[in-house]
Amino acid sequence: MKRKLVVVKIGGNVLDHPEQLSNVLKAFHSINEYKILVHGGGRKASEILQKLGIEPQMVEGRRITDAETLQVIQMVYAGLINKNIVAELQALGCNAIGLSGADANTVMAEKRPVKAIDYGFAGDIKSVNGGIIGNLLNLGLSPVFCSVMHDGKGQTLNTNADTVAAELAAAMAKNFDVELLYCFEKNGVLQNPEDEDSVLRQITLATFEELSRQKIIGDGMIPKIQNALIAMQNGVRSCRIMHSGDLMKYTEGKRTGTEIILS
Amino acid sequence: MKRKLVVVKIGGNVLDHPEQLSNVLKAFHSINEYKILVHGGGRKASEILQKLGIEPQMVEGRRITDAETLQVIQMVYAGLINKNIVAELQALGCNAIGLSGADANTVMAEKRPVKAIDYGFAGDIKSVNGGIIGNLLNLGLSPVFCSVMHDGKGQTLNTNADTVAAELAAAMAKNFDVELLYCFEKNGVLQNPEDEDSVLRQITLATFEELSRQKIIGDGMIPKIQNALIAMQNGVRSCRIMHSGDLMKYTEGKRTGTEIILS
Repeated sequence: MKRKLVVVKIGGNVLDHPEQLSNVLKAFHSINEYKILVHGGGRKASEILQKLGIEPQMVEGRRITDAETLQVIQMVYAGLINKNIVAELQALGCNAIGLSGADANTVMAEKRPVKAIDYGFAGDIKSVNGGIIGNLLNLGLSPVFCSVMHDGKGQTLNTNADTVAAELAAAMAKNFDVELLYCFEKNGVLQNPEDEDSVLRQITLATFEELSRQKIIGDGMIPKIQNALIAMQNGVRSCRIMHSGDLMKYTEGKRTGTEIILS
Repeated sequence: MKRKLVVVKIGGNVLDHPEQLSNVLKAFHSINEYKILVHGGGRKASEILQKLGIEPQMVEGRRITDAETLQVIQMVYAGLINKNIVAELQALGCNAIGLSGADANTVMAEKRPVKAIDYGFAGDIKSVNGGIIGNLLNLGLSPVFCSVMHDGKGQTLNTNADTVAAELAAAMAKNFDVELLYCFEKNGVLQNPEDEDSVLRQITLATFEELSRQKIIGDGMIPKIQNALIAMQNGVRSCRIMHSGDLMKYTEGKRTGTEIILS
Protein backbone atom coordinates (compact mmCIF):
# COMPACT_ATOMS: atom_id res chain seq x y z
CA MET A 1 0.00 0.00 0.00
CA LYS A 2 1.27 3.43 -0.92
CA ARG A 3 2.02 5.88 1.86
CA LYS A 4 -0.21 8.95 2.02
CA LEU A 5 1.14 12.35 0.96
CA VAL A 6 -0.72 15.65 1.13
CA VAL A 7 0.33 18.47 -1.22
CA VAL A 8 -0.96 21.87 -0.08
CA LYS A 9 -0.78 24.92 -2.31
CA ILE A 10 -1.32 28.26 -0.57
CA GLY A 11 -2.32 31.31 -2.55
CA GLY A 12 -1.00 34.85 -2.71
CA ASN A 13 -3.62 36.40 -0.47
CA VAL A 14 -2.83 34.41 2.67
CA LEU A 15 0.87 35.25 2.27
CA ASP A 16 0.02 38.93 2.70
CA HIS A 17 -1.68 38.38 6.06
CA PRO A 18 0.70 37.11 8.76
CA GLU A 19 -2.07 35.96 11.09
CA GLN A 20 -3.87 33.98 8.36
CA LEU A 21 -0.54 32.54 7.26
CA SER A 22 0.23 31.45 10.83
CA ASN A 23 -3.09 29.63 11.03
CA VAL A 24 -2.49 27.87 7.72
CA LEU A 25 1.00 26.83 8.83
CA LYS A 26 -0.39 25.49 12.13
CA ALA A 27 -2.93 23.49 10.14
CA PHE A 28 -0.24 22.26 7.76
CA HIS A 29 1.84 21.14 10.74
CA SER A 30 -1.22 19.23 12.03
CA ILE A 31 -1.34 17.05 8.92
CA ASN A 32 -0.09 13.74 10.32
CA GLU A 33 1.12 12.44 6.96
CA TYR A 34 3.97 13.10 4.62
CA LYS A 35 3.34 16.61 3.33
CA ILE A 36 4.57 19.22 0.87
CA LEU A 37 3.73 22.93 0.86
CA VAL A 38 3.79 25.02 -2.34
CA HIS A 39 3.65 28.81 -2.45
CA GLY A 40 4.15 31.69 -4.84
CA GLY A 41 4.07 35.23 -3.53
CA GLY A 42 2.90 37.57 -6.29
CA ARG A 43 1.80 40.58 -4.30
CA LYS A 44 4.94 40.97 -2.22
CA ALA A 45 7.02 40.71 -5.41
CA SER A 46 4.93 43.46 -7.01
CA GLU A 47 5.47 45.63 -3.93
CA ILE A 48 9.26 45.19 -4.02
CA LEU A 49 9.30 45.70 -7.81
CA GLN A 50 7.52 49.00 -7.36
CA LYS A 51 9.87 50.08 -4.56
CA LEU A 52 12.77 49.36 -6.93
CA GLY A 53 11.05 51.36 -9.67
CA ILE A 54 10.32 48.32 -11.84
CA GLU A 55 6.76 48.37 -13.18
CA PRO A 56 5.12 44.91 -12.90
CA GLN A 57 3.98 43.75 -16.34
CA MET A 58 1.05 41.39 -16.59
CA VAL A 59 -0.65 39.96 -19.68
CA GLU A 60 -3.87 38.00 -19.18
CA GLY A 61 -3.09 37.50 -15.50
CA ARG A 62 0.38 36.16 -16.22
CA ARG A 63 3.51 38.03 -15.32
CA ILE A 64 6.06 39.02 -17.93
CA THR A 65 9.35 38.11 -16.28
CA ASP A 66 12.26 40.14 -17.62
CA ALA A 67 15.73 39.66 -16.11
CA GLU A 68 15.27 42.34 -13.45
CA THR A 69 11.83 41.02 -12.52
CA LEU A 70 13.18 37.48 -12.24
CA GLN A 71 15.81 38.68 -9.74
CA VAL A 72 13.09 40.22 -7.58
CA ILE A 73 10.80 37.17 -7.87
CA GLN A 74 13.69 34.93 -6.87
CA MET A 75 14.55 37.20 -3.93
CA VAL A 76 10.98 37.45 -2.68
CA TYR A 77 9.78 33.88 -3.30
CA ALA A 78 12.92 31.85 -2.56
CA GLY A 79 14.52 34.21 -0.04
CA LEU A 80 11.96 36.22 1.86
CA ILE A 81 8.71 34.24 1.83
CA ASN A 82 10.18 30.73 1.65
CA LYS A 83 12.58 31.21 4.56
CA ASN A 84 9.97 33.01 6.68
CA ILE A 85 7.58 30.08 6.17
CA VAL A 86 10.28 27.52 6.93
CA ALA A 87 11.41 29.36 10.07
CA GLU A 88 7.79 29.61 11.27
CA LEU A 89 7.16 25.91 10.59
CA GLN A 90 10.36 25.02 12.47
CA ALA A 91 9.10 27.06 15.43
CA LEU A 92 5.96 24.89 15.40
CA GLY A 93 8.10 21.74 15.40
CA CYS A 94 7.56 20.92 11.73
CA ASN A 95 10.87 19.98 10.13
CA ALA A 96 10.43 21.94 6.92
CA ILE A 97 13.00 22.35 4.17
CA GLY A 98 12.63 25.19 1.67
CA LEU A 99 13.27 24.31 -1.95
CA SER A 100 13.39 25.88 -5.35
CA GLY A 101 13.40 23.55 -8.35
CA ALA A 102 17.19 23.88 -8.62
CA ASP A 103 17.69 22.58 -5.07
CA ALA A 104 18.56 18.88 -5.28
CA ASN A 105 17.43 19.21 -8.92
CA THR A 106 13.89 18.57 -7.72
CA VAL A 107 11.94 20.30 -10.51
CA MET A 108 13.13 21.25 -13.96
CA ALA A 109 11.33 23.76 -16.16
CA GLU A 110 11.86 25.09 -19.65
CA LYS A 111 11.58 28.67 -20.79
CA ARG A 112 8.19 29.27 -22.33
CA PRO A 113 8.61 29.52 -26.12
CA VAL A 114 8.00 32.99 -27.52
CA LYS A 115 4.79 33.02 -29.58
CA ALA A 116 2.37 35.97 -29.56
CA ILE A 117 3.72 37.04 -26.16
CA ASP A 118 7.29 36.89 -24.86
CA TYR A 119 6.88 35.92 -21.21
CA GLY A 120 10.62 36.34 -20.61
CA PHE A 121 12.04 34.10 -17.89
CA ALA A 122 8.77 32.29 -17.32
CA GLY A 123 8.99 28.54 -17.31
CA ASP A 124 6.76 25.55 -17.80
CA ILE A 125 7.45 22.44 -15.75
CA LYS A 126 9.37 19.79 -17.68
CA SER A 127 10.16 17.13 -15.07
CA VAL A 128 9.84 16.41 -11.37
CA ASN A 129 12.43 14.27 -9.62
CA GLY A 130 10.08 12.33 -7.37
CA GLY A 131 12.90 10.07 -6.17
CA ILE A 132 14.87 12.74 -4.36
CA ILE A 133 11.70 14.37 -3.00
CA GLY A 134 10.72 10.95 -1.63
CA ASN A 135 14.15 10.66 -0.03
CA LEU A 136 13.70 14.01 1.71
CA LEU A 137 10.25 12.97 2.94
CA ASN A 138 11.74 9.71 4.24
CA LEU A 139 14.25 11.75 6.25
CA GLY A 140 11.25 13.25 8.06
CA LEU A 141 11.42 16.52 6.17
CA SER A 142 8.47 18.48 4.80
CA PRO A 143 9.46 20.25 1.58
CA VAL A 144 8.26 23.84 1.12
CA PHE A 145 8.45 24.70 -2.57
CA CYS A 146 8.52 28.19 -3.95
CA SER A 147 7.62 28.52 -7.62
CA VAL A 148 11.15 29.33 -8.84
CA MET A 149 12.51 26.48 -10.94
CA HIS A 150 15.58 25.96 -13.13
CA ASP A 151 16.28 24.79 -16.66
CA GLY A 152 19.27 22.58 -15.84
CA LYS A 153 21.54 24.96 -17.75
CA GLY A 154 22.02 27.48 -14.96
CA GLN A 155 18.96 29.62 -15.60
CA THR A 156 16.29 30.05 -12.93
CA LEU A 157 12.72 30.44 -14.18
CA ASN A 158 9.51 31.84 -12.74
CA THR A 159 6.70 29.28 -12.85
CA ASN A 160 3.05 29.18 -11.90
CA ALA A 161 2.65 27.89 -8.33
CA ASP A 162 -0.69 26.17 -9.07
CA THR A 163 0.97 24.21 -11.86
CA VAL A 164 3.95 23.40 -9.63
CA ALA A 165 1.56 21.91 -7.06
CA ALA A 166 -0.27 19.84 -9.72
CA GLU A 167 2.95 18.57 -11.32
CA LEU A 168 4.46 17.69 -7.93
CA ALA A 169 1.28 15.87 -6.93
CA ALA A 170 1.17 14.00 -10.24
CA ALA A 171 4.84 12.97 -10.08
CA MET A 172 4.61 11.85 -6.46
CA ALA A 173 1.46 9.83 -7.24
CA LYS A 174 3.67 7.13 -8.77
CA ASN A 175 4.90 6.15 -5.30
CA PHE A 176 2.50 7.82 -2.90
CA ASP A 177 -1.22 8.05 -2.30
CA VAL A 178 -1.54 11.78 -2.99
CA GLU A 179 -4.14 14.33 -1.97
CA LEU A 180 -3.84 17.79 -3.51
CA LEU A 181 -5.34 20.79 -1.75
CA TYR A 182 -5.56 24.22 -3.37
CA CYS A 183 -6.06 26.67 -0.53
CA PHE A 184 -7.08 30.21 -1.40
CA GLU A 185 -9.23 33.10 -0.22
CA LYS A 186 -12.63 31.75 -1.32
CA ASN A 187 -14.78 28.93 0.04
CA GLY A 188 -14.27 26.91 -3.13
CA VAL A 189 -15.35 27.23 -6.74
CA LEU A 190 -18.39 29.48 -6.54
CA GLN A 191 -21.45 29.29 -8.75
CA ASN A 192 -21.97 32.98 -8.05
CA PRO A 193 -18.71 34.84 -7.37
CA GLU A 194 -20.60 37.29 -5.10
CA ASP A 195 -21.95 34.53 -2.88
CA GLU A 196 -19.51 32.58 -0.70
CA ASP A 197 -22.30 30.13 0.06
CA SER A 198 -22.68 29.12 -3.60
CA VAL A 199 -19.81 26.60 -3.47
CA LEU A 200 -19.98 23.90 -6.11
CA ARG A 201 -19.47 20.69 -4.12
CA GLN A 202 -18.02 18.72 -7.01
CA ILE A 203 -16.69 19.44 -10.47
CA THR A 204 -16.09 16.65 -12.95
CA LEU A 205 -14.34 16.84 -16.31
CA ALA A 206 -17.78 16.96 -17.96
CA THR A 207 -19.36 19.57 -15.66
CA PHE A 208 -16.16 21.68 -15.88
CA GLU A 209 -16.55 21.93 -19.65
CA GLU A 210 -20.20 22.82 -19.32
CA LEU A 211 -19.59 25.40 -16.54
CA SER A 212 -16.76 27.02 -18.53
CA ARG A 213 -18.92 27.15 -21.65
CA GLN A 214 -21.70 28.84 -19.68
CA LYS A 215 -19.09 31.19 -18.18
CA ILE A 216 -20.21 30.23 -14.67
CA ILE A 217 -16.57 29.53 -13.83
CA GLY A 218 -14.52 32.71 -14.16
CA ASP A 219 -11.25 33.07 -16.05
CA GLY A 220 -9.21 33.12 -12.83
CA MET A 221 -10.51 29.72 -11.74
CA ILE A 222 -10.14 27.90 -15.05
CA PRO A 223 -6.36 27.23 -14.93
CA LYS A 224 -6.63 26.07 -11.30
CA ILE A 225 -9.33 23.54 -12.18
CA GLN A 226 -7.43 22.47 -15.28
CA ASN A 227 -4.36 21.86 -13.14
CA ALA A 228 -6.45 19.87 -10.68
CA LEU A 229 -7.94 17.75 -13.47
CA ILE A 230 -4.50 17.06 -14.95
CA ALA A 231 -3.28 15.97 -11.51
CA MET A 232 -6.27 13.63 -11.20
CA GLN A 233 -5.64 12.22 -14.67
CA ASN A 234 -2.09 11.46 -13.53
CA GLY A 235 -3.06 9.33 -10.58
CA VAL A 236 -3.62 11.82 -7.76
CA ARG A 237 -6.27 10.26 -5.55
CA SER A 238 -8.15 13.37 -4.51
CA CYS A 239 -8.12 17.07 -5.22
CA ARG A 240 -9.92 19.90 -3.51
CA ILE A 241 -10.14 23.69 -3.98
CA MET A 242 -10.92 25.22 -0.62
CA HIS A 243 -10.54 28.17 1.74
CA SER A 244 -7.15 28.48 3.48
CA GLY A 245 -8.98 29.01 6.73
CA ASP A 246 -10.56 25.55 6.40
CA LEU A 247 -7.26 23.64 6.36
CA MET A 248 -7.44 22.96 10.10
CA LYS A 249 -10.95 21.55 9.67
CA TYR A 250 -9.54 19.34 6.93
CA THR A 251 -6.98 17.89 9.35
CA GLU A 252 -9.92 17.10 11.66
CA GLY A 253 -11.59 15.11 8.90
CA LYS A 254 -14.10 17.74 7.70
CA ARG A 255 -14.25 18.23 3.94
CA THR A 256 -15.12 21.69 2.64
CA GLY A 257 -14.73 23.45 -0.71
CA THR A 258 -14.97 21.96 -4.17
CA GLU A 259 -13.88 18.45 -4.90
CA ILE A 260 -12.44 17.94 -8.38
CA ILE A 261 -13.10 14.48 -9.76
CA LEU A 262 -12.75 12.95 -13.20
CA SER A 263 -16.27 11.55 -13.44
CA MET B 1 37.90 5.62 9.05
CA LYS B 2 35.94 8.85 8.74
CA ARG B 3 34.83 9.93 5.31
CA LYS B 4 36.42 13.10 3.96
CA LEU B 5 34.40 16.32 3.79
CA VAL B 6 35.57 19.64 2.37
CA VAL B 7 33.90 22.85 3.58
CA VAL B 8 34.55 25.79 1.25
CA LYS B 9 33.68 29.36 2.24
CA ILE B 10 33.61 31.87 -0.61
CA GLY B 11 33.91 35.56 0.10
CA GLY B 12 31.94 38.57 -1.00
CA ASN B 13 34.29 39.70 -3.74
CA VAL B 14 34.01 36.60 -5.91
CA LEU B 15 30.20 36.79 -5.71
CA ASP B 16 30.32 40.16 -7.46
CA HIS B 17 32.23 38.77 -10.48
CA PRO B 18 30.23 36.18 -12.44
CA GLU B 19 33.26 34.82 -14.29
CA GLN B 20 35.32 34.36 -11.10
CA LEU B 21 32.30 32.79 -9.44
CA SER B 22 31.88 30.35 -12.34
CA ASN B 23 35.50 29.28 -11.99
CA VAL B 24 35.14 28.76 -8.26
CA LEU B 25 31.98 26.72 -8.79
CA LYS B 26 33.72 24.58 -11.43
CA ALA B 27 36.53 23.98 -8.95
CA PHE B 28 34.03 23.19 -6.18
CA HIS B 29 32.33 20.69 -8.48
CA SER B 30 35.74 19.07 -9.11
CA ILE B 31 36.19 18.23 -5.44
CA ASN B 32 35.68 14.46 -5.47
CA GLU B 33 34.63 14.25 -1.85
CA TYR B 34 31.62 15.14 0.21
CA LYS B 35 31.50 18.93 0.13
CA ILE B 36 29.69 21.94 1.52
CA LEU B 37 29.78 25.49 0.16
CA VAL B 38 29.18 28.53 2.39
CA HIS B 39 28.56 32.06 1.15
CA GLY B 40 27.41 35.46 2.34
CA GLY B 41 26.86 38.24 -0.14
CA GLY B 42 27.39 41.60 1.53
CA ARG B 43 27.99 43.84 -1.46
CA LYS B 44 24.91 42.82 -3.42
CA ALA B 45 22.82 43.32 -0.28
CA SER B 46 24.25 46.81 0.14
CA GLU B 47 23.42 47.59 -3.50
CA ILE B 48 19.78 46.46 -3.10
CA LEU B 49 19.51 48.27 0.24
CA GLN B 50 20.61 51.48 -1.43
CA LYS B 51 18.20 50.99 -4.35
CA LEU B 52 15.43 50.60 -1.77
CA GLY B 53 16.60 53.75 -0.01
CA ILE B 54 17.82 51.92 3.10
CA GLU B 55 21.23 53.15 4.19
CA PRO B 56 23.54 50.22 5.11
CA GLN B 57 24.72 50.62 8.68
CA MET B 58 28.07 49.16 9.66
CA VAL B 59 29.89 49.28 13.00
CA GLU B 60 33.45 47.93 13.14
CA GLY B 61 32.92 46.03 9.90
CA ARG B 62 29.77 44.37 11.17
CA ARG B 63 26.37 45.14 9.78
CA ILE B 64 23.57 46.47 11.96
CA THR B 65 20.61 44.40 10.87
CA ASP B 66 17.31 46.17 11.50
CA ALA B 67 14.05 44.49 10.39
CA GLU B 68 14.09 46.07 6.92
CA THR B 69 17.75 45.21 6.40
CA LEU B 70 17.14 41.61 7.48
CA GLN B 71 14.44 41.28 4.80
CA VAL B 72 16.88 42.45 2.15
CA ILE B 73 19.69 40.22 3.41
CA GLN B 74 17.36 37.25 3.41
CA MET B 75 16.18 38.08 -0.11
CA VAL B 76 19.67 38.58 -1.49
CA TYR B 77 21.52 35.78 0.31
CA ALA B 78 18.88 33.04 0.48
CA GLY B 79 16.95 33.97 -2.66
CA LEU B 80 19.12 35.63 -5.26
CA ILE B 81 22.69 34.46 -4.63
CA ASN B 82 21.95 31.05 -3.15
CA LYS B 83 19.60 29.95 -5.94
CA ASN B 84 21.88 31.35 -8.67
CA ILE B 85 24.78 29.34 -7.23
CA VAL B 86 22.67 26.19 -6.90
CA ALA B 87 21.32 26.52 -10.48
CA GLU B 88 24.85 27.03 -11.80
CA LEU B 89 26.18 24.02 -9.86
CA GLN B 90 23.30 21.91 -11.17
CA ALA B 91 24.23 22.94 -14.72
CA LEU B 92 27.73 21.59 -14.01
CA GLY B 93 26.26 18.31 -12.79
CA CYS B 94 26.81 18.99 -9.10
CA ASN B 95 23.70 18.04 -7.14
CA ALA B 96 23.62 21.08 -4.88
CA ILE B 97 20.92 21.95 -2.35
CA GLY B 98 20.64 25.50 -1.07
CA LEU B 99 20.05 25.86 2.64
CA SER B 100 19.49 28.51 5.25
CA GLY B 101 19.83 27.46 8.86
CA ALA B 102 16.04 27.12 9.14
CA ASP B 103 15.95 24.54 6.33
CA ALA B 104 15.82 21.08 7.88
CA ASN B 105 16.72 22.91 11.11
CA THR B 106 20.37 22.60 10.11
CA VAL B 107 21.81 25.57 12.02
CA MET B 108 20.34 27.44 14.92
CA ALA B 109 21.52 30.87 16.01
CA GLU B 110 20.63 33.25 18.81
CA LYS B 111 20.12 36.97 18.56
CA ARG B 112 23.27 38.74 19.67
CA PRO B 113 22.66 40.25 23.11
CA VAL B 114 22.52 44.05 23.16
CA LYS B 115 25.58 45.44 24.94
CA ALA B 116 27.37 48.61 23.76
CA ILE B 117 25.97 48.08 20.26
CA ASP B 118 22.55 46.77 19.23
CA TYR B 119 23.27 44.67 16.15
CA GLY B 120 19.56 44.09 15.57
CA PHE B 121 18.72 40.79 13.93
CA ALA B 122 22.30 39.60 13.92
CA GLY B 123 22.83 36.12 15.27
CA ASP B 124 25.57 34.01 16.73
CA ILE B 125 25.59 30.29 15.95
CA LYS B 126 24.18 28.19 18.78
CA SER B 127 24.02 24.68 17.34
CA VAL B 128 24.61 22.75 14.14
CA ASN B 129 22.56 19.64 13.37
CA GLY B 130 25.33 17.53 11.89
CA GLY B 131 23.06 14.48 11.70
CA ILE B 132 20.67 15.87 9.11
CA ILE B 133 23.51 17.50 7.14
CA GLY B 134 25.20 14.09 7.06
CA ASN B 135 21.94 12.56 5.80
CA LEU B 136 21.79 15.08 2.95
CA LEU B 137 25.44 14.37 2.05
CA ASN B 138 24.66 10.64 2.08
CA LEU B 139 21.87 11.28 -0.45
CA GLY B 140 24.58 12.57 -2.79
CA LEU B 141 23.69 16.22 -2.19
CA SER B 142 26.16 19.09 -1.73
CA PRO B 143 24.70 21.66 0.67
CA VAL B 144 25.16 25.33 -0.24
CA PHE B 145 24.66 27.40 2.89
CA CYS B 146 23.86 31.08 2.92
CA SER B 147 24.54 32.87 6.18
CA VAL B 148 20.89 33.35 7.17
CA MET B 149 20.04 31.24 10.22
CA HIS B 150 17.04 30.95 12.55
CA ASP B 151 16.45 31.02 16.29
CA GLY B 152 13.99 28.11 16.42
CA LYS B 153 11.23 30.54 17.43
CA GLY B 154 10.38 31.71 13.94
CA GLN B 155 12.92 34.51 13.65
CA THR B 156 15.54 34.47 10.91
CA LEU B 157 18.92 35.98 11.80
CA ASN B 158 21.83 37.38 9.84
CA THR B 159 25.09 35.64 10.77
CA ASN B 160 28.72 35.91 9.77
CA ALA B 161 29.50 33.54 6.89
CA ASP B 162 33.09 32.89 8.08
CA THR B 163 31.73 31.79 11.44
CA VAL B 164 29.06 29.65 9.78
CA ALA B 165 31.79 27.84 7.84
CA ALA B 166 33.89 27.27 10.97
CA GLU B 167 30.94 26.06 13.05
CA LEU B 168 29.74 23.75 10.28
CA ALA B 169 33.26 22.35 9.87
CA ALA B 170 33.62 21.85 13.62
CA ALA B 171 30.24 20.13 14.00
CA MET B 172 30.81 17.85 11.01
CA ALA B 173 34.27 16.90 12.34
CA LYS B 174 32.56 14.57 14.82
CA ASN B 175 31.68 12.18 11.99
CA PHE B 176 33.81 13.31 9.07
CA ASP B 177 37.44 14.04 8.29
CA VAL B 178 36.99 17.75 7.59
CA GLU B 179 39.07 20.22 5.63
CA LEU B 180 38.03 23.87 5.83
CA LEU B 181 38.98 26.28 3.04
CA TYR B 182 38.46 30.02 3.31
CA CYS B 183 38.57 31.34 -0.26
CA PHE B 184 38.83 35.06 -0.77
CA GLU B 185 40.42 37.72 -2.99
CA LYS B 186 43.97 37.54 -1.60
CA ASN B 187 46.67 34.90 -1.93
CA GLY B 188 46.47 34.10 1.77
CA VAL B 189 47.34 35.89 4.99
CA LEU B 190 49.88 38.47 3.87
CA GLN B 191 52.85 39.70 5.89
CA ASN B 192 52.65 42.91 3.87
CA PRO B 193 49.11 43.74 2.70
CA GLU B 194 50.55 45.51 -0.37
CA ASP B 195 52.51 42.44 -1.49
CA GLU B 196 50.57 39.41 -2.73
CA ASP B 197 53.83 37.43 -2.65
CA SER B 198 54.26 37.91 1.09
CA VAL B 199 51.94 35.03 1.99
CA LEU B 200 52.55 33.55 5.42
CA ARG B 201 52.74 29.80 4.74
CA GLN B 202 51.60 28.76 8.21
CA ILE B 203 50.04 30.39 11.22
CA THR B 204 49.90 28.63 14.56
CA LEU B 205 48.03 29.66 17.69
CA ALA B 206 51.30 31.05 19.06
CA THR B 207 52.42 32.91 15.92
CA PHE B 208 48.87 34.29 15.48
CA GLU B 209 49.07 35.93 18.87
CA GLU B 210 52.49 37.33 18.11
CA LEU B 211 51.49 38.57 14.61
CA SER B 212 48.34 40.22 15.98
CA ARG B 213 50.30 41.88 18.77
CA GLN B 214 52.77 43.27 16.22
CA LYS B 215 49.79 44.35 14.08
CA ILE B 216 51.21 42.42 11.11
CA ILE B 217 47.79 40.78 10.72
CA GLY B 218 45.16 43.39 9.96
CA ASP B 219 41.81 43.76 11.70
CA GLY B 220 39.92 42.25 8.76
CA MET B 221 41.90 38.99 8.93
CA ILE B 222 41.78 38.48 12.68
CA PRO B 223 38.21 37.09 12.93
CA LYS B 224 38.83 34.77 9.96
CA ILE B 225 41.94 33.30 11.60
CA GLN B 226 40.18 33.09 14.97
CA ASN B 227 37.37 31.15 13.29
CA ALA B 228 39.89 28.85 11.64
CA LEU B 229 41.67 28.23 14.95
CA ILE B 230 38.38 27.47 16.70
CA ALA B 231 37.53 24.98 13.93
CA MET B 232 40.95 23.33 14.40
CA GLN B 233 40.47 23.17 18.16
CA ASN B 234 37.18 21.35 17.49
CA GLY B 235 38.67 18.54 15.48
CA VAL B 236 38.83 19.91 11.94
CA ARG B 237 41.83 18.21 10.34
CA SER B 238 43.10 21.05 8.18
CA CYS B 239 42.31 24.67 7.51
CA ARG B 240 43.59 26.99 4.84
CA ILE B 241 43.03 30.66 3.89
CA MET B 242 43.61 31.01 0.16
CA HIS B 243 42.75 32.77 -3.09
CA SER B 244 39.42 31.76 -4.67
CA GLY B 245 41.24 31.43 -7.98
CA ASP B 246 43.45 28.70 -6.47
CA LEU B 247 40.60 26.34 -5.64
CA MET B 248 41.04 24.39 -8.88
CA LYS B 249 44.75 23.95 -8.09
CA TYR B 250 43.69 22.66 -4.70
CA THR B 251 41.55 19.96 -6.33
CA GLU B 252 44.67 18.99 -8.31
CA GLY B 253 46.60 18.49 -5.08
CA LYS B 254 48.49 21.80 -5.00
CA ARG B 255 48.42 23.63 -1.70
CA THR B 256 48.53 27.44 -1.74
CA GLY B 257 47.70 30.17 0.74
CA THR B 258 48.09 30.09 4.49
CA GLU B 259 47.70 26.95 6.50
CA ILE B 260 46.23 27.46 9.95
CA ILE B 261 47.51 24.92 12.48
CA LEU B 262 47.33 24.72 16.24
CA SER B 263 51.06 24.22 16.85
